[in-house]
Amino acid sequence: MGTIDLNSDVGESYGRWTLGDDLAMFRSVSSANVACGFHAGDPSVIRLTCREAVAAGVMIGAHVGYRDLAGFGRRFLDIDPGELADDVVYQIGALQALAAAEGGKVAYVKPHGGLYNAIVAHTAQARAVVEAVKSVDPNLPILGLPGSEVLRLAEAAGLRAVTEAFADRAYNPDGTLVSRTLPGAVLHDHTEVTEHVLRMATDSAVRTIDGSILKIRAESICVHGDSPGAVTMAAAVREALNAAGITTAAFV
Amino acid sequence: MGTIDLNSDVGESYGRWTLGDDLAMFRSVSSANVACGFHAGDPSVIRLTCREAVAAGVMIGAHVGYRDLAGFGRRFLDIDPGELADDVVYQIGALQALAAAEGGKVAYVKPHGGLYNAIVAHTAQARAVVEAVKSVDPNLPILGLPGSEVLRLAEAAGLRAVTEAFADRAYNPDGTLVSRTLPGAVLHDHTEVTEHVLRMATDSAVRTIDGSILKIRAESICVHGDSPGAVTMAAAVREALNAAGITTAAFV
Amino acid sequence: MGTIDLNSDVGESYGRWTLGDDLAMFRSVSSANVACGFHAGDPSVIRLTCREAVAAGVMIGAHVGYRDLAGFGRRFLDIDPGELADDVVYQIGALQALAAAEGGKVAYVKPHGGLYNAIVAHTAQARAVVEAVKSVDPNLPILGLPGSEVLRLAEAAGLRAVTEAFADRAYNPDGTLVSRTLPGAVLHDHTEVTEHVLRMATDSAVRTIDGSILKIRAESICVHGDSPGAVTMAAAVREALNAAGITTAAFV
Amino acid sequence: MGTIDLNSDVGESYGRWTLGDDLAMFRSVSSANVACGFHAGDPSVIRLTCREAVAAGVMIGAHVGYRDLAGFGRRFLDIDPGELADDVVYQIGALQALAAAEGGKVAYVKPHGGLYNAIVAHTAQARAVVEAVKSVDPNLPILGLPGSEVLRLAEAAGLRAVTEAFADRAYNPDGTLVSRTLPGAVLHDHTEVTEHVLRMATDSAVRTIDGSILKIRAESICVHGDSPGAVTMAAAVREALNAAGITTAAFV
Repeated sequence: MGTIDLNSDVGESYGRWTLGDDLAMFRSVSSANVACGFHAGDPSVIRLTCREAVAAGVMIGAHVGYRDLAGFGRRFLDIDPGELADDVVYQIGALQALAAAEGGKVAYVKPHGGLYNAIVAHTAQARAVVEAVKSVDPNLPILGLPGSEVLRLAEAAGLRAVTEAFADRAYNPDGTLVSRTLPGAVLHDHTEVTEHVLRMATDSAVRTIDGSILKIRAESICVHGDSPGAVTMAAAVREALNAAGITTAAFV
Repeated sequence: MGTIDLNSDVGESYGRWTLGDDLAMFRSVSSANVACGFHAGDPSVIRLTCREAVAAGVMIGAHVGYRDLAGFGRRFLDIDPGELADDVVYQIGALQALAAAEGGKVAYVKPHGGLYNAIVAHTAQARAVVEAVKSVDPNLPILGLPGSEVLRLAEAAGLRAVTEAFADRAYNPDGTLVSRTLPGAVLHDHTEVTEHVLRMATDSAVRTIDGSILKIRAESICVHGDSPGAVTMAAAVREALNAAGITTAAFV
Repeated sequence: MGTIDLNSDVGESYGRWTLGDDLAMFRSVSSANVACGFHAGDPSVIRLTCREAVAAGVMIGAHVGYRDLAGFGRRFLDIDPGELADDVVYQIGALQALAAAEGGKVAYVKPHGGLYNAIVAHTAQARAVVEAVKSVDPNLPILGLPGSEVLRLAEAAGLRAVTEAFADRAYNPDGTLVSRTLPGAVLHDHTEVTEHVLRMATDSAVRTIDGSILKIRAESICVHGDSPGAVTMAAAVREALNAAGITTAAFV
Repeated sequence: MGTIDLNSDVGESYGRWTLGDDLAMFRSVSSANVACGFHAGDPSVIRLTCREAVAAGVMIGAHVGYRDLAGFGRRFLDIDPGELADDVVYQIGALQALAAAEGGKVAYVKPHGGLYNAIVAHTAQARAVVEAVKSVDPNLPILGLPGSEVLRLAEAAGLRAVTEAFADRAYNPDGTLVSRTLPGAVLHDHTEVTEHVLRMATDSAVRTIDGSILKIRAESICVHGDSPGAVTMAAAVREALNAAGITTAAFV
């Protein structure tokens, strides 16, 4: 039928601390959001992740975040947009060099955590990210939430804006994600998740938390890599897509 | 008569903290060792420094160091060589992206502080630095002490090894620098410094701490940028060289 | 006539980077807001600052902040209140041990920068700070803006709430500070500043940016220590107060 | 017969990253070496660990380390002794405040990782640790390797020096530990470990890597908490000791 990308956050170990099983995830996903050292990922972790991604034929993306190791980049930081742009350029450049040392290259940018959430609506920070990406390479796509400020500004700046949906997250009727603090925000049941994903991939739609059907166009689907059962969930999603005749492949 | 490079450490401010007057130094030096964020230099400082270096026609080098903000990268760290190599690749890549965003490029690598001193003799760390630079770009020269392990290994690996001498440091008869903990280690007198530099540039020699003359070949001379009077000292050195018919210019 | 406290931010150097002239400020102020390592101040800087404060008879306070060296703690961080409380306890404890090693003690707590501004209105973060202080020592006063959430909650929790005014900041008619992004936000003229301070100390009032007089009760007046001319400004403020018959002394 | 202490490293999680199962370890050990934030352990992790230690009746010690999150404090850092002392005071103070907030107290100090290894022989760093501990509280014992510089200097300074042995580490005939880079350095077999421990506890001796018996006096035995099987190993050690009539209890 068609083709869709599966992306996942990887390279999130740091020094003595291990998070996720990246190598196992690479059997299922087509794109790897590699942490760049500001919220997770030290240079050796990043390089190893790039090596494994290259070997597995998985596309490498820069998972840029706030400088916040203690908070894993998940907390909003009211950073000056100019400084944010420079932080983003720095992170992409660092990843580019490590990826290149392993025969790979950075093919897209996906903001992480608190930054990802902020630039759904925070125009100044969204613009900073777009300008940073453009200053590094105007051919680098940005991955984000459909309808977000960052994707709107990316397109306005002539960048490719790639939309994504979340395999295991419940949606509100307005297309936003149900807050993690509410019950039912995260889907854990394999059947529920694979139905969710198949509706995204085949109907460009999701069933929202109130049961209605919402149109949502996604070129990529995010599967989480750091939760218990992440590896088997990712494999289940990929198998369900493939069984429905949908190929999983990098979006570029 | 000839040509010699003048290099200085710059981009060493960090966040709220200012160090040195880079813009003023750029009137005298031909090469800029730009901090890369591990021992000094945040992304916005680095980018501004690159912008000013590009505007001044000063060559940009990556001043890579140990990850040690609290110690300014001056303390030896017994880091695993593989991890050191990855840290160096990361720093060079980050600087490359920021330099490129300002129309510049990284033209060489100079290790900083504790790392610089360690790889005079520490073979494993020296090899890590050489391998890191080579993996990023085998055309990047490494700047170091004449006779050091890092320059020996750089040449063996096919990299260009660029020797440097220090304008304001006293030398031991064996060519090593007099330890900063000893009296007379740092020269403060302008006349003394300019004589020291002229002897380097015209005779390829230095007068050592015991008064003997030692042959020392240096393609670049390092002038410090963070001490009081750094700017006037750098200007004096350049004027003395120019007055003696020696052009100051980047070594590549 | 009366007595008022003069406080200033100190201990804000970090490793190789120097900020402010604490020793000179100690000739004028009666209270020292000592950075605790999260936004500024390394352990050796902190300890030296405590030693000098003890020698000068200046009261030591814990200047607790967000964990944000790169941003000097000036950027709002949307941290979980429980984690904020633990960060505050950690910082106070660290300072207590260093102060005690120099024969001093932590006599109050003043939140810094972005945290200071946040808890004027952010109830959850304000409560976290109050609970943290109370859990360390219910006899520790908290210094803050008159009318702020943090002082309201401190009093409700049985802590002493100490109000402060700013010597060199313009006030809005509602008692808030004029934003630093607006013209006239910071007063630079000595005469203007000393008039501002005398009105605070003698009339419990300030002239606001629109010329009206606003009643404002302050037990302490903050003089900045990191701006050019800080030392002479602080001395001028103290002299003006003393000349008006007002003693400057620690509020406890 | 007698009594011996069992200690383990805990509180080593950091932000998003989890390491070890401290709660489970607390069923077996009598002393907890709690990370203090420089090599591992954020304030919330530390406080939770203290809460659990207090609830389990386990003694709390300050596991002070080099400021090196990326290297988990395991790499030698050539830090100035004065700065090291201040870093140690800072860490102990921070832990004291968090422990006190949970109704506990810091009862001893154990240096961690690279620092632990360095001060077996590095006199200046060993003296710095001893002076730091003494300046905080001369009644705090220091836990270390028998025959080490740090314990020699601790006793000379009037501090209590507590010796420890390692349950799962092979010993050289001179009493040093077999380097982790050599085969057989770490014991994994439960029977082997429990025999090792029983010999320590009943005969004050270990069988060394060459089969000889070496006298070694240890008041505490360290069981590791971060390796796979750590919890069951610790339980096995405690059971073996108890079965041999030896009580496990904190050394103070």
